[in-house]
Amino acid sequence: MNTLINGAPCDTISVNDRGLLYGDGVFRTLLLRKGKVLQWHRHYACLFKDCNAIYLQCPPESLLYGELERLVQDAQDGVIKIIVTRGSAQRGYAPAPHPVATRILNLSPLPAYSEAFSTSGIRLHLCQLRLGQQPRLAGVKHLNRLENVLAAAEWDDPDIAEGLLLDESGYVIEAVRSNIFMVKNGDLITPDLSRCGVSGVQRERLIEWAAQQGVKCKIMDVPLDDLLAADEIFLVNSVIGLWPVRELPGYHCEHHPVAQVIQDWLAHDSN
Amino acid sequence: MNTLINGAPCDTISVNDRGLLYGDGVFRTLLLRKGKVLQWHRHYACLFKDCNAIYLQCPPESLLYGELERLVQDAQDGVIKIIVTRGSAQRGYAPAPHPVATRILNLSPLPAYSEAFSTSGIRLHLCQLRLGQQPRLAGVKHLNRLENVLAAAEWDDPDIAEGLLLDESGYVIEAVRSNIFMVKNGDLITPDLSRCGVSGVQRERLIEWAAQQGVKCKIMDVPLDDLLAADEIFLVNSVIGLWPVRELPGYHCEHHPVAQVIQDWLAHDSN
Repeated sequence: MNTLINGAPCDTISVNDRGLLYGDGVFRTLLLRKGKVLQWHRHYACLFKDCNAIYLQCPPESLLYGELERLVQDAQDGVIKIIVTRGSAQRGYAPAPHPVATRILNLSPLPAYSEAFSTSGIRLHLCQLRLGQQPRLAGVKHLNRLENVLAAAEWDDPDIAEGLLLDESGYVIEAVRSNIFMVKNGDLITPDLSRCGVSGVQRERLIEWAAQQGVKCKIMDVPLDDLLAADEIFLVNSVIGLWPVRELPGYHCEHHPVAQVIQDWLAHDSN
Repeated sequence: MNTLINGAPCDTISVNDRGLLYGDGVFRTLLLRKGKVLQWHRHYACLFKDCNAIYLQCPPESLLYGELERLVQDAQDGVIKIIVTRGSAQRGYAPAPHPVATRILNLSPLPAYSEAFSTSGIRLHLCQLRLGQQPRLAGVKHLNRLENVLAAAEWDDPDIAEGLLLDESGYVIEAVRSNIFMVKNGDLITPDLSRCGVSGVQRERLIEWAAQQGVKCKIMDVPLDDLLAADEIFLVNSVIGLWPVRELPGYHCEHHPVAQVIQDWLAHDSN
């Protein structure tokens, strides 16, 4: 069983589901490792917050977690995707007053990324697509992801592991499926996501970790030139963990001492 | 039979369809009247252009039209929705090199709008949500419609028939599910949609009609104050036809002579 819809094994949804019609829903991507769902409480908190942002009632944590346990009961490792949509309802954009959300839980095998991406670092493509600004949806991991699709279509060189996204003003925001950090003079810097971008759980963990360690972590507008002058650049998300950036047009870096420390911490402190 | 998926009667799609996962697809809404699909060639041309905009190969016109004929064979009147998605494929945002599109054709009953909306005009809500700007997707009727959903959630007064959308710079763009025109000193004016908004078939028809009639129709940036100073305002789309605007905060207009002429023409020249 690798998909549960509203608790039942099933791999299709209604063509009237608003997730399909309008991208009217949110999602999370989680890691299953050695039979354990990593960072569940954080992911649920983000799902809850994201549902609120689009006025959708989030399914209760106990319900979702119970279904998750059934989904992964015979599995050890994999990628879990949780989608919550506003379900099927009346015609038209306006949400029904009390919609019944659709819950989709899916388990798939771990992707086969090159080990070198984690150890030696990756090549990063600079995307031509610029992210539009929409403060009402900024930070939210919603199902309107055409910008990411168009950005990911910009390269097909398997040696390039990710794409860097700027906003329409030219500020660095994120990578296509991960958040970005830079190291400068011992400080961490990560882009402000109040106008666009997706705020991931690993980004959140890292910001908290920095505060606990007494490492300064600035959340701010980052012009591309500042990124290219960084001592280190790295990407984080729940599936990849941390990838140092070795190459980006105008940037080259072989050594990532700070990124390595954080990579180890992200991998070992997995609660 | 009210839904065909890839030509077969069916009302569910795979949870792996990219239309659900990313809103990775486009759609059209057409009218069936007296057994006839109105403006088919125009709608297909828009579908084709919109598919191109997201690098998706549009299904051939003959294939879609053959399926449309089967969908509507026993029906007289209704609303047809055509959705084309990038189908189910590999994990991740990057499109497969040669994806097989999913074709969804759905027929539903005509909505029961008040006759007064067409004759006396409507009340228009001024939405707080401002549209983000994304030139790469502007004009395209794609499945990323969360902005429309959030905007439509702003009012629940059944007396208000539509919502007016401005962009982040404060320019008038469109209404939640229709295009907008204003009349000023005998000229038509409709907003430029090169940064955001959806370009509908009725807007296109009207711009062409104006050129044929020697009526000046300007496509330009429209500040809200200019709209409020209009002699007439009206909305168009394929389902509603034309609705004059009677009320909008800061605007009131009981007589819509130009809108009436255009309304009659839109309704009668239906090829």
